Amino acid sequence: MSSKAVRGTRDILPDEMKIRDQLEQQILEVYRTHGFSRIETPVMENLELLLGSEGGENLKMLFTILKRGEKLELTPEASVLDLCDMGLRFDLTLPLSRFYSNNKETLEGPFKAIQIGNVFRAERPQKGRYRSFKQCDIDIIGDPTVNAEIELMDTTAKALLAIGFKGFTIKVNHRKLLGAMIQKSGFSADAVGTICISLDKMDKIGVAGVTRELISKGHDSNAVDKLMTCVTTITLENLEQWVEDPETIEALVTVINTVKVLAKNNFEVVFDFSLIRGMGYYTGLIFEVSYGPYGSAIAGGGRYDNMIGRYEKTSVPAVGFSIGFERIINILMDEKGDAVQDEKAVILFYEPQTDKLAEVIALGDAWRKKGYVVNLMAMKKKFGKQIAANDKGRYQGFLVFGRDEEIKNF
Amino acid sequence: MSSKAVRGTRDILPDEMKIRDQLEQQILEVYRTHGFSRIETPVMENLELLLGSEGGENLKMLFTILKRGEKLELTPEASVLDLCDMGLRFDLTLPLSRFYSNNKETLEGPFKAIQIGNVFRAERPQKGRYRSFKQCDIDIIGDPTVNAEIELMDTTAKALLAIGFKGFTIKVNHRKLLGAMIQKSGFSADAVGTICISLDKMDKIGVAGVTRELISKGHDSNAVDKLMTCVTTITLENLEQWVEDPETIEALVTVINTVKVLAKNNFEVVFDFSLIRGMGYYTGLIFEVSYGPYGSAIAGGGRYDNMIGRYEKTSVPAVGFSIGFERIINILMDEKGDAVQDEKAVILFYEPQTDKLAEVIALGDAWRKKGYVVNLMAMKKKFGKQIAANDKGRYQGFLVFGRDEEIKNF
Repeated sequence: MSSKAVRGTRDILPDEMKIRDQLEQQILEVYRTHGFSRIETPVMENLELLLGSEGGENLKMLFTILKRGEKLELTPEASVLDLCDMGLRFDLTLPLSRFYSNNKETLEGPFKAIQIGNVFRAERPQKGRYRSFKQCDIDIIGDPTVNAEIELMDTTAKALLAIGFKGFTIKVNHRKLLGAMIQKSGFSADAVGTICISLDKMDKIGVAGVTRELISKGHDSNAVDKLMTCVTTITLENLEQWVEDPETIEALVTVINTVKVLAKNNFEVVFDFSLIRGMGYYTGLIFEVSYGPYGSAIAGGGRYDNMIGRYEKTSVPAVGFSIGFERIINILMDEKGDAVQDEKAVILFYEPQTDKLAEVIALGDAWRKKGYVVNLMAMKKKFGKQIAANDKGRYQGFLVFGRDEEIKNF
Repeated sequence: MSSKAVRGTRDILPDEMKIRDQLEQQILEVYRTHGFSRIETPVMENLELLLGSEGGENLKMLFTILKRGEKLELTPEASVLDLCDMGLRFDLTLPLSRFYSNNKETLEGPFKAIQIGNVFRAERPQKGRYRSFKQCDIDIIGDPTVNAEIELMDTTAKALLAIGFKGFTIKVNHRKLLGAMIQKSGFSADAVGTICISLDKMDKIGVAGVTRELISKGHDSNAVDKLMTCVTTITLENLEQWVEDPETIEALVTVINTVKVLAKNNFEVVFDFSLIRGMGYYTGLIFEVSYGPYGSAIAGGGRYDNMIGRYEKTSVPAVGFSIGFERIINILMDEKGDAVQDEKAVILFYEPQTDKLAEVIALGDAWRKKGYVVNLMAMKKKFGKQIAANDKGRYQGFLVFGRDEEIKNF
């Protein structure tokens, strides 16, 4: 019987777990002091809900859960909806929208949500990419103004700074700008989605690669050329030459300029027209945080004003920003090793088979009161070896019950 | 489109979430200061692993995940293993055993593990019983002596005391005692498992109900009578009259007497021969915590010395104790309402459409430095109404940017 974790997932060992718990608490603390409130939803959602979302490529990576309690019609024609009625969530945004609609009467307006939890995508397993991974999201529901975007960027940046990141870059773009420019280049409105999927690969395959892909998909080469010229020459300063949409331009400029003031010298904020974000549900500003030489984003988000409208008669404005916890952890462990914040930890050894365990425990409690983590261990016959084996661990020292009054250093 | 959480699960709202986070941290703190280390495993495990475990009734309540990446053979004869290759974990003990085997080279010996996470069982939905629920487990792997049981009971009891429980009862029994008495009454060794399943219903259907059930299952009425006499008259003091197994009796007596000393007047520890615990994997001492008038246990555990042997050549001794987080929360909210530990929280109002949001945020930060949670809110036209709407919330007061120097109370 194999003892490996299932494909694409992994076990988290004590040293990493300690770092993860510390980081999660630090992030949570920043979110909380900024007035956000934590909520939680189940990892499973109705499959129809997941499939009906605009989750983009993620819908191809759903884990679905077999129906229970009814006889399945097992024929070769059976679809996933015949077999399954639930799926594991692929993000925290769709569940939040459902949550908001389900509980809106009792929630503050605007509602500022914190969600920290795992999401699931059947990605092709590769280094640093897992099929179960943690996200730390904040969202503001009910604020149609760019104040919401600014507050999310400010709070997310503070969380990243709090856990030791510095010099990261927030890239900002606007879905409406993308849509307008794609159409202005000569593509039809229907094509915007698929064009965006290709543009999204810019980081990996470059301008030439995206050009090739669009042409191979049968798009007009003239339109492709125009779009690529735009991609490579558009800037925040010359935006008005490219697009006639003063409202979108103002939103973009206000957000970037305000966040620049907040950034001081701690991080950058830039306009990046090649920024796409995979999800189909975004409707306005979109943003991503990149850091140093690390390829993929460490955080991302955007405005999704139409998603809650799936449940409600009227649409409800909403924006979110999500920190990719696994990437954060990978980078921090890469850069800083697994240096855990110091704790005072000692071992309290005792004779095995002792009839005095209650007294041993009481002595442990006395040291705990002094602020120590105390681990009880029965002494082995080869005590010298046992001490040596624990020397390189997390302990600063040890005591032997009935023998030592003070902690001995290793 | 329905916005309800999937059947048998629920959304957790901000007020409850705050309590949950506080309790979880308090429990974690007790576990940690007692030398336990937190680990994490994925919520999904290989289906064969789950089905091959001795999970008792829980195996009938598995959520299974459809295979991906291969063409399914959809015929009426297809079994769940033909359709699915993973399932959601139904407890944290099986994953821990797999984890230990997978990572044992890097783990301390004995390994003292903390796990806090959700498990999944397709229970018939009812009040207070969910299909996704949190457990807080500690386990000691590698200690064959009852010191492990005593340490787990001590630590779990301290965690329960830390979060405000008092006067609970730890019930203790021993699987070997159960097995011996069942056989001594005249049942075959093979029948022990099914007899235990019936005995486990004692709480709900009483001695008469269990008697009826055993007889209706075709068991010898003489044997059933003998067993029921034992169940109703056996005590820790007369154990030796019932069973000739000095080792088992000594283990039981040592644990109960030592924990009695540790309990002082804070909680009780008693021998309870009708305690079964559903899982088939227990091999030695088993225990459960009951509290006040609440029917079901708030914590439970036992020794499972053979489970890790599924992966290893030799079996590895192991004991675990799990707190049922949802029950704890239900009881605390029942008894104490949703009284959250006080935090200093204020609202910082600002004129909407402000071009001074960076300054507003800076003022918010200044108050955060003084220890406040600061929630930014754009002022509405009917400001008086807006203030009134937030009066009953979590805020002690508010400030208006550019107008107030000090916090105004509601």
